[in-house]
Amino acid sequence: MEDKAQIQEAIKSQGEVVRKLKSEKASKEQGTRDYNPKQMAIREKVFNTIIRCFKRHGAETIDTPVFELKETLTGKYGEDSKLIYDLKDQGGELLSLRYDLTVPFARYLAMNKITNIKRYHIAKVYRRDNPAMTRGRYREFYQCDFDIAGQYDAMIPDAECLKIVHEILNELDLGDFRIKVNDRRILDGMFAVCGVPDDKFRTICSTVDKLDKMSWEDVKKEMVNEKGLSEEAADQIGEYVSMQGGMDLAERLLQDHKMSQSKQACAGLSDIKLLFKYLQLFHVTDKVVFDLSLARGLDYYTGVIYEAVLTQASAVSAANEAQNGANAEESVSVGSVAGGGRYDGLVGMFDPKGRRVPCVGVSIGIERIFSIMEQKAEASPEKVRTTEVQIMVASAQKNLLEERLQLISELWNAGIKAEVMYKKNPKLLSQLQYCEEAGIPLVAILGEQELKDGVVKLRVVATREEVDISRADLISEIKRRTEA
Amino acid sequence: MEDKAQIQEAIKSQGEVVRKLKSEKASKEQGTRDYNPKQMAIREKVFNTIIRCFKRHGAETIDTPVFELKETLTGKYGEDSKLIYDLKDQGGELLSLRYDLTVPFARYLAMNKITNIKRYHIAKVYRRDNPAMTRGRYREFYQCDFDIAGQYDAMIPDAECLKIVHEILNELDLGDFRIKVNDRRILDGMFAVCGVPDDKFRTICSTVDKLDKMSWEDVKKEMVNEKGLSEEAADQIGEYVSMQGGMDLAERLLQDHKMSQSKQACAGLSDIKLLFKYLQLFHVTDKVVFDLSLARGLDYYTGVIYEAVLTQASAVSAANEAQNGANAEESVSVGSVAGGGRYDGLVGMFDPKGRRVPCVGVSIGIERIFSIMEQKAEASPEKVRTTEVQIMVASAQKNLLEERLQLISELWNAGIKAEVMYKKNPKLLSQLQYCEEAGIPLVAILGEQELKDGVVKLRVVATREEVDISRADLISEIKRRTEA
Repeated sequence: MEDKAQIQEAIKSQGEVVRKLKSEKASKEQGTRDYNPKQMAIREKVFNTIIRCFKRHGAETIDTPVFELKETLTGKYGEDSKLIYDLKDQGGELLSLRYDLTVPFARYLAMNKITNIKRYHIAKVYRRDNPAMTRGRYREFYQCDFDIAGQYDAMIPDAECLKIVHEILNELDLGDFRIKVNDRRILDGMFAVCGVPDDKFRTICSTVDKLDKMSWEDVKKEMVNEKGLSEEAADQIGEYVSMQGGMDLAERLLQDHKMSQSKQACAGLSDIKLLFKYLQLFHVTDKVVFDLSLARGLDYYTGVIYEAVLTQASAVSAANEAQNGANAEESVSVGSVAGGGRYDGLVGMFDPKGRRVPCVGVSIGIERIFSIMEQKAEASPEKVRTTEVQIMVASAQKNLLEERLQLISELWNAGIKAEVMYKKNPKLLSQLQYCEEAGIPLVAILGEQELKDGVVKLRVVATREEVDISRADLISEIKRRTEA
Repeated sequence: MEDKAQIQEAIKSQGEVVRKLKSEKASKEQGTRDYNPKQMAIREKVFNTIIRCFKRHGAETIDTPVFELKETLTGKYGEDSKLIYDLKDQGGELLSLRYDLTVPFARYLAMNKITNIKRYHIAKVYRRDNPAMTRGRYREFYQCDFDIAGQYDAMIPDAECLKIVHEILNELDLGDFRIKVNDRRILDGMFAVCGVPDDKFRTICSTVDKLDKMSWEDVKKEMVNEKGLSEEAADQIGEYVSMQGGMDLAERLLQDHKMSQSKQACAGLSDIKLLFKYLQLFHVTDKVVFDLSLARGLDYYTGVIYEAVLTQASAVSAANEAQNGANAEESVSVGSVAGGGRYDGLVGMFDPKGRRVPCVGVSIGIERIFSIMEQKAEASPEKVRTTEVQIMVASAQKNLLEERLQLISELWNAGIKAEVMYKKNPKLLSQLQYCEEAGIPLVAILGEQELKDGVVKLRVVATREEVDISRADLISEIKRRTEA
């Protein structure tokens, strides 16, 4: 097909590509990964749990392209905008890879003039971030988003989002977790009463957001030294952001002589109270904490914000953290696995007339969850099956390929999941070994005698039990034994 | 949060984005689309059919990143390489969006030294092609690939790939179809015996590939005038490429005094014979045609190639074609919906030592199928449901929000798909109307009297029948009525 020198050349240059791909440095730089069949089996299980929950709550689903017009993404992500991947200008519009699913969702609502929808969207997003692949942080990663758009009564959809997080983390069985809640209006009100100048709200908020990774001392240093805040203001903030509680804390702060001076803060605190009331009806308050240190980085939040963290490191991930030299304290919180909040202004930014569509939503941080599930699967003695094959069509003698193909065709047509070896004369032993490795529970064995008698020898791989089944009964017998 | 002038500015510039997006020109240039909930419901149905088939045949699944190193894609797609999307150089490796799923699969096998696998992969690929969105041709589109890698006996995996195409097109019920088969070795042998110079095989092959869109006269013109082939050679090719048949044609050509001079052609013809033998065992030869005009564009094929076409235009798409000014003849073949073949050299191109892993596979052209299914759904009187909600929790009187939330929480916890209106005091009529629009079959109506009696009024939306059900029996009653 191609001349030899050309092929040699191609092989040489492609070998180089593979060597690059395999080197630690390159894969780190690229920050992406392939999913092998075992990882895919785990991924499918996690997705199924999440999708089942989203559907239980009546969500529709939509899909948007992997790239958006560059200008659609501009001015939505604050300091993180530098992490957006751009496509090369090859003529036509300037395009960028999506950074999250929220901005494309808002663009979709505005473009189609949709004012009410409850939708989920599961897709990959792209960030030119510093990858940390052992911790499940990649440059290409999945987001699983659930959002409710529409003008509704306060805190009812917001409470449902938290109920969803609660259901999903419970079902995935990842260990204990906490859902922190706060409100952007409370943060802004707090900044105002602590004496933060208006134009520093967003940048001080970004610094507060680092409290889950930095000590208060370091956060304070950044506020005072880098962002030019007065020491006094910083100290006042420090007092508030150490506060955690439930509905009682919201009530106390509504009485707080400073906080109560801010109308914004009071609106936020009243909503937190209402939220807790609804969460009580959902029986999920045991996991929910009102935490004044929760800030969240993104620009577009306007009301309630929340973030779920696993509070117990699994044995495996704790060991990993130790290997990476992290200290014991760090491994207490293995990081955020879900987050979201209310963004009432984003859709209006895409509408020519600025018409607002209030939205609230949550995003499940699935890569982190995959990592934990994969480590769990590694540690478990049970083998992960990567196919659902019910039966292997095998032969005990030579020259029975045609008979095998005929039988497997019948099985496929009856909806049975079946495999056959792609050899004219495979050894029975190798056919049986394949079944053991792949976890296939049954083997249909054809031989001269069976063909004469109009039967198939059905072998149960686990017990090695063998019975003759007539061809007429074979399909129902396979279903009976494997579709329990 | 932001100052007013800034918001005004943002609204103005974003309004501009939306106007651009909405204009015919821009969306055409971008060549992508959003999927709305109805389209997603159809897409899910199609995917389920395809995945069920792939799983029935024992395939595992893998996933690869949306972008590859640019050099991975270089030199794999012949003249079509110009359609590859590159990412902007923002530091680090040069990256491109994947053009298909086959090259990433080969790269994955070589990188992980995998010599045997049967896998499917469903994901989006990217081509900077001229979009034709009414015909289901986009710049971002799904491919559904099934491939078998490994050193096996001839034509057994190849026959399974064709069986899979047959099963999927049957199950999707898109009307009649044909699967054309040919072999690259037969094409090359034919070119050789017709006097095409060695270095013109690939380019003449590309011209033959246009026979599904151009007349023989135009194809011949391109061969002679643009590609410098002799008229005599072109005429000889013309005779061969008009031939269609089954196993008999392969036998006849093995006796053909010219064709039989090519060892390559004979190897291909013998394999076509063997292929038809296996296809007979699978009972699918009624749809399969050995067609010497089938060429397929991609460089990497080395043996059997195939392509499935729908032969009957559905009423709707015929009407569409007519509107677009296409003539009646064109609408007889509505285009390729699946294609594939054998590529024994591709994996070796990525292996440092050039180790070969023979592969054969098929790709289902799903966008075309979506288009047809969407048109079918539009034409059908049956409404496509976009959620699976079983019941709406409603109230007949005011001030029952807390009771509704409590009940729906119980239902969710029991796995029931349920919705509630996000209003404190929704009207009963608007709750019932919502059910009719969304196709929700049941309503649980709460009222003061029902709460006192410990019952729920269960209303069947279609018949308006209402019965009182005790709270204890509610969940089993919902399941009984909706999980038939």
